[in-house]
Amino acid sequence: MDSRPIGVFDSGLGGLTALRELARLMPEEDLIYFGDTGRVPYGGRSRETLIQYARQDVAFLKTFQPKAVVIACGTVSATALDVLTAENTFPIYGVVESAARLAAARTQSRKVGLIGTRASIRSGAYERALAALDPAIQVYPQACPLLVPLVENGRFRPGDAVTEQVVAEYLTPLKEAAVDTLILGCTHYPLLRDVVQSYMGPEVTLVDVGAACADWVATSLEEHGLRCGGTAPGRRQYYVSDSTEDFAYLASLFLGQDITDGVAQVDITRY
Amino acid sequence: MDSRPIGVFDSGLGGLTALRELARLMPEEDLIYFGDTGRVPYGGRSRETLIQYARQDVAFLKTFQPKAVVIACGTVSATALDVLTAENTFPIYGVVESAARLAAARTQSRKVGLIGTRASIRSGAYERALAALDPAIQVYPQACPLLVPLVENGRFRPGDAVTEQVVAEYLTPLKEAAVDTLILGCTHYPLLRDVVQSYMGPEVTLVDVGAACADWVATSLEEHGLRCGGTAPGRRQYYVSDSTEDFAYLASLFLGQDITDGVAQVDITRY
Repeated sequence: MDSRPIGVFDSGLGGLTALRELARLMPEEDLIYFGDTGRVPYGGRSRETLIQYARQDVAFLKTFQPKAVVIACGTVSATALDVLTAENTFPIYGVVESAARLAAARTQSRKVGLIGTRASIRSGAYERALAALDPAIQVYPQACPLLVPLVENGRFRPGDAVTEQVVAEYLTPLKEAAVDTLILGCTHYPLLRDVVQSYMGPEVTLVDVGAACADWVATSLEEHGLRCGGTAPGRRQYYVSDSTEDFAYLASLFLGQDITDGVAQVDITRY
Repeated sequence: MDSRPIGVFDSGLGGLTALRELARLMPEEDLIYFGDTGRVPYGGRSRETLIQYARQDVAFLKTFQPKAVVIACGTVSATALDVLTAENTFPIYGVVESAARLAAARTQSRKVGLIGTRASIRSGAYERALAALDPAIQVYPQACPLLVPLVENGRFRPGDAVTEQVVAEYLTPLKEAAVDTLILGCTHYPLLRDVVQSYMGPEVTLVDVGAACADWVATSLEEHGLRCGGTAPGRRQYYVSDSTEDFAYLASLFLGQDITDGVAQVDITRY
């Protein structure tokens, strides 16, 4: 039994979709969320800058003495998990491996689509993870740089003509390749689930990387005897690097409920 | 005569459209450009964070002992010019006032449209500048948060269905209001000139804030006896806060020519 909190971070607020799943599976755990809203988005930045930002994000979470850290960011998971793991003693969970495992288990045709930011796709991390699980799987990767801006501007609902057109454009080659499983390789994308499912068709399985990761984290903490073991609802604390003024609106979109706990601002460059 | 360089900065590489105009009008001046590519985009951030970032940008440029600094960024010009001017002894030029002057001089109907980032529009800076020049001018402001991501992804050319649709959506109320002048209040937007002109019609005057600012800077430096007075071509130096690897491609889009001078990376958080 371990009552220390679980740290969770993302470039911005998209990672709250993963936090929501963690809270659903482990309601009694204390969760500390950091969203780097002063430097979002990460998806177009270089590997070098991503690693620097991720190190600072983890350094901030370490001030809470976490028992584990979850990288609720597809881009950081795909580019910096190895570096962060090597530098820390507690377990660090990224979204790539758990999503790859779920996709490999679900695909029948062994044709798996993958959408993510430019940096995620460029990293090749999902391809490597899938190849290690089943070398026969063919991966169809597609960088989708406009999806994060669309989601961050609240434009993710079916009927938004611009979003539907952008999604169709990005997904055309994946649909033509007849993938039967599609990894939504960014924690912003669950909000686009309806638009994506509608374009791809109901027979395509969508893998939500945040939900897959939360499943894995819960299992892994259990196996390592790191669950808190209490029954009282855990505390949720939210930190961001930009002003907190717009936090409540966006956070409620990603969490699917209003935030009642407080949020505080952090100068992340000090870490 | 003053041979010190002119410093120019922007959140990213959009400000190169202003640098291009400065270089055209004053080819013999030395120009130092800083693009904060590690933290771009600025347009959705809070005033507090914008001021912090802008202070660091100016502090970096000050290491070159500039005779003047140009804020080649609509968002910073609209939110932080007063603060930066109060803190420094050399002249600092923003894009708001010069664009307002040009728009006020050109409009016949006294109906002026304004497009910019969320932070620029929220600041009300253009409305104040226009009201000071002519209180009878009616301003029609429109925040366009998706235009910077579209331009940064190279999607600014006529025929791009997504971009044309987004532009039409943003500009519909301005066209319906029958504005005869439209301020392109962000240094990324000159790349969208053809798409915007095509939608608004040839009779609407587009005001390029970077070009208007460059005109004003050249005149002002002349008046203050701050021109360098030489005839040899000035040096151009480029600095960015993210890796320099993608710089050449994007920079050539904004500058309209290939960059032959070097580019270096800066840790902007140290300033």
